[in-house]
Amino acid sequence: MTTTTDTDTAVRTLHRVFPADQILTDAGSLERYSHDDAEWAEYTAPLAVVLAQSTDDVARVVRWAGEHGVRVVPRGAGTGLSGGANAFPGSVVVSLERMNRVLEVNTDERYAVTQAGVINDALRAEVAKSGLWYPPDPASSAISTIGGNAATNAGGICCVKYGVTRDYVLGLTVVLADGEVVTLGRKTAKGVAGYDLTGLLVGSEGTLGVITEVTVKLLPLSGRDERAVIGFFPSLEAAGTAVAEISRAGIIPAALELIDHTCLVAVDEWQHLGLPGDVDTLLLCRIDERGAAGDELADRVESIFTAAGGTDVERATDPDEITRLFLARRLAYPALERLGPVLTEDICVPRKAVPTMLARIQETTRRHDVTIANIAHAGDGNLHPLIITPVGDEAAKARAKEAFDTIVADCLDLGGTVTGEHGVGLLKLPGLRAELGERVLAMHAAVKNALDPQATLNPGKAF
Amino acid sequence: MTTTTDTDTAVRTLHRVFPADQILTDAGSLERYSHDDAEWAEYTAPLAVVLAQSTDDVARVVRWAGEHGVRVVPRGAGTGLSGGANAFPGSVVVSLERMNRVLEVNTDERYAVTQAGVINDALRAEVAKSGLWYPPDPASSAISTIGGNAATNAGGICCVKYGVTRDYVLGLTVVLADGEVVTLGRKTAKGVAGYDLTGLLVGSEGTLGVITEVTVKLLPLSGRDERAVIGFFPSLEAAGTAVAEISRAGIIPAALELIDHTCLVAVDEWQHLGLPGDVDTLLLCRIDERGAAGDELADRVESIFTAAGGTDVERATDPDEITRLFLARRLAYPALERLGPVLTEDICVPRKAVPTMLARIQETTRRHDVTIANIAHAGDGNLHPLIITPVGDEAAKARAKEAFDTIVADCLDLGGTVTGEHGVGLLKLPGLRAELGERVLAMHAAVKNALDPQATLNPGKAF
Repeated sequence: MTTTTDTDTAVRTLHRVFPADQILTDAGSLERYSHDDAEWAEYTAPLAVVLAQSTDDVARVVRWAGEHGVRVVPRGAGTGLSGGANAFPGSVVVSLERMNRVLEVNTDERYAVTQAGVINDALRAEVAKSGLWYPPDPASSAISTIGGNAATNAGGICCVKYGVTRDYVLGLTVVLADGEVVTLGRKTAKGVAGYDLTGLLVGSEGTLGVITEVTVKLLPLSGRDERAVIGFFPSLEAAGTAVAEISRAGIIPAALELIDHTCLVAVDEWQHLGLPGDVDTLLLCRIDERGAAGDELADRVESIFTAAGGTDVERATDPDEITRLFLARRLAYPALERLGPVLTEDICVPRKAVPTMLARIQETTRRHDVTIANIAHAGDGNLHPLIITPVGDEAAKARAKEAFDTIVADCLDLGGTVTGEHGVGLLKLPGLRAELGERVLAMHAAVKNALDPQATLNPGKAF
Repeated sequence: MTTTTDTDTAVRTLHRVFPADQILTDAGSLERYSHDDAEWAEYTAPLAVVLAQSTDDVARVVRWAGEHGVRVVPRGAGTGLSGGANAFPGSVVVSLERMNRVLEVNTDERYAVTQAGVINDALRAEVAKSGLWYPPDPASSAISTIGGNAATNAGGICCVKYGVTRDYVLGLTVVLADGEVVTLGRKTAKGVAGYDLTGLLVGSEGTLGVITEVTVKLLPLSGRDERAVIGFFPSLEAAGTAVAEISRAGIIPAALELIDHTCLVAVDEWQHLGLPGDVDTLLLCRIDERGAAGDELADRVESIFTAAGGTDVERATDPDEITRLFLARRLAYPALERLGPVLTEDICVPRKAVPTMLARIQETTRRHDVTIANIAHAGDGNLHPLIITPVGDEAAKARAKEAFDTIVADCLDLGGTVTGEHGVGLLKLPGLRAELGERVLAMHAAVKNALDPQATLNPGKAF
């Protein structure tokens, strides 16, 4: 670690490397760039923020950092929920938000090459112009970047059928810890030339290299007929039964989302959607097989919903109507944030264990005297218990942290993983230790040390 | 490197670790286990072969090897085509063929846990009993093992739609270079806990750890209606046009295979299939969408085939009829092997470059005076030029090796990769160097050194 005088000197030298309009050092900016959406995790103002405009800019920051013993925290849009982009003493944040150009859309091979700072929805819109589709759809798709999605291996709503970010990343341009730039992966449909370093970098949360460009695989935009089926259930158990039955029937929906009572009430109190009274849990299903085959699958989902005790079962094929039915899902998070600071959990359990896990979360609510609302990618067993505390209530915040730990422990007990799609960052470090064990963590440390021997890149995150 | 006396002593000590029926040291066995199906690559008889029966057996071999300075070559069924399982001086082969039990099939979560030595088709048959499907289908599926498939990230015929082995490996049990056993990955549908070490081990060709158990993701067996469409084309170019048009139309077939004239003639001369006269190239397409939507896609494939100059276009929905139509594909390799030793290429180029690459291969045939037949996973741009030499003709063998190098160079020139699905092994080491460059190879070496500092596991392979 360098001394304060050293770092002051270092920041002065940074001004020799970049023009003034690419460096932020004012207190407001340093605060704004000091953490991502995981404010519950530790953070400190960085020494400076560099607004990179090219891969070469990133390489220059990293080389400069290496020379001055400064650590680099890469940052996309700062929408992470685990603290992966939180700054710490003696660090500089390199923001890739200005690297927001889609460089190539190749319709013959169905791929796109994009700079890391392109917003997920913007990429989706851009490739749609060429009749192509980029499936991974994290709930943050309107505000998160492809680079951040790749660094955290982001999931989303349609993953249950279409897979996560890693499944779509064919290749990367990466700035390594010594400031050298490499191209990893390929643009061909298949390839097994060497280790899967592309896949290793995806989800490594900026600890092995800074991702500056991403080559993503695309699917044809056409060929899917979307239908939504929704149903209200009298209990979490009844909804859980429906989820299990859909899986057992061999139906793979394009989305299968669960919204619990606490969440529904928060949305309804805010937006007055006129939800049916006396309901507990909402399931939202999307089926996108084409034609009569898809209609038949949707019929089966309706039957399963009804048999499991679902009421007010509705069906839609019109895009606007589907959007309306999924409205409660989209509004859930902002509706809950109105009630106070939200600590977002992200666990994934075996599908069959979803009802048990939800029951344990209810028990945790009682035991720790906290409010927990649940949104779940139920078809994946990926639950997001959202722990809400009143503004300024420090005692409640402490209880929320205890509840967070209890949920992680319960998840591991049921054979789950401590993070389904948000990443480890800082918040899940204790849980990860319990999940992986010392030997596998030592493998992580060995790989990290092999690719970043000076620990320049985002040290202390991800494992 | 240990001396001869040392290794003799070492092999004697091996008999203290394993009972006699798990160690092979006779000349016949040593020869049989000294190479995989890439006889063109270098190999030497190993010191001994250990027939492992458990993960613990593998751990004991690796620990013993580390203590005696012996190298370990892991081996599944020895069906590899790049020399990844070829033995070298001072090595011991550990065969996992006896570890052939499927340990668990979980219908709720749709995964199976299998020992590494289970044959691909045997796993497929086992999970089918539970209504589940394991898609990856290398041409060697009747004889290759899941462990070998994972170690090489094997592809196959249905990858064009369903992905390769890595896309289905959720978790692994691995013996590390120091003989410790770790469990990597997960059994949940999603998970981002730590680096993707599972994906790193898949395709690492036994150089980072020995895979002893594999947890694979499964799909529902039902929900697909298979149809085959075949067509004969007057030229490679015409067939290439049809392939490009299918891609451009946004159709993703479940298989799209190309068989060239040399291959067709070899099959017909052997099996007298009564192929239509005056044809050059055969395309085989499989469409598996359900119901009318699938029928419509098959109609479009037929139209595309005909528009591109295809003749004798045939269609089948009956499973036996589909099998008959795909017969020429299945018989291609054995039909060619009747003509002499076959040097199998495995390159992958952008789909659009398939006709150009095939034209360059024809040019290579002339320039190097060799016989080359082509089978291709055309929908992926993955070509298998098969270079055939007369038995015992050493001059022809030398020309074949030159042709091999020319094809690799042409593939790189067209933006392709030197190995689409067979792996690097030994045969593709020069091509890999050209493809990846020194810095990315240095990353490989750093990762290898981090996880296997004594270079105990299959050194000299894969990169």
